[in-house]
Amino acid sequence: MNIYFAGSIRGGREDAALYFQIVSSLARYGTVLTEHVGDSELSINGDELSDREIHDRDLQWLRSCDCLVAEVTKPSLGVGFEIGKATEWGKQVLCLYRPSDSRLLSAMIGGNDRVTVERYRSVDEVDAIFARHLSR
Amino acid sequence: MNIYFAGSIRGGREDAALYFQIVSSLARYGTVLTEHVGDSELSINGDELSDREIHDRDLQWLRSCDCLVAEVTKPSLGVGFEIGKATEWGKQVLCLYRPSDSRLLSAMIGGNDRVTVERYRSVDEVDAIFARHLSR
Repeated sequence: MNIYFAGSIRGGREDAALYFQIVSSLARYGTVLTEHVGDSELSINGDELSDREIHDRDLQWLRSCDCLVAEVTKPSLGVGFEIGKATEWGKQVLCLYRPSDSRLLSAMIGGNDRVTVERYRSVDEVDAIFARHLSR
Repeated sequence: MNIYFAGSIRGGREDAALYFQIVSSLARYGTVLTEHVGDSELSINGDELSDREIHDRDLQWLRSCDCLVAEVTKPSLGVGFEIGKATEWGKQVLCLYRPSDSRLLSAMIGGNDRVTVERYRSVDEVDAIFARHLSR
């Protein structure tokens, strides 16, 4: 199975360590096309490709994936964009969300019947979430 | 012309006053379907509809619009999602962006040839931007 993992890059890298752990867990279910999203060396500036090259590469990966897994706690234009495309293309979409009082999940995600949203509090819970939703 | 204006709601309302001015300016070019995005009374909790109702209403508006105008400075999942859908549906997409050193625009937007990005510093500049891109 090819898995596209989406997390915030230019929206902010506060959750990069968490993304790394999620990618490690996802790797048990298939090939994670976007492993670099969990790379702590990847800064807000992203990688060294041009914006056009990043856009074209990522959309090609998204088209070829079987499943999009997105961490949606940190608001991100790119993650939202990818969820919009993936739902349009009929992909399985699984969103991971850490609820907080100050932060509410977008209705475009929470009210979308093409998206499965799983709430969690710690990364220890993601293995069980993946076991429920992803086939090995 | 029907215009869908997109700005951050649950991603944060710091720019709400700016959105209001943008919506006022846009109203000269057509009907702004999402006037409430510029309403300073609209909190991070959004309106009183359920998430499903907001999602369905907004996607219906987005489908029926001629043009999506998005303020993309404040990262937002919903705004990204709507840009993803609108580019897929062949809509005209115009993004307004206030550059800063600490904030870089997503490559999904900046590297997307279906999206026009206009950089600006103050709301005084948006009228001229709309005059260039929108037909009355």
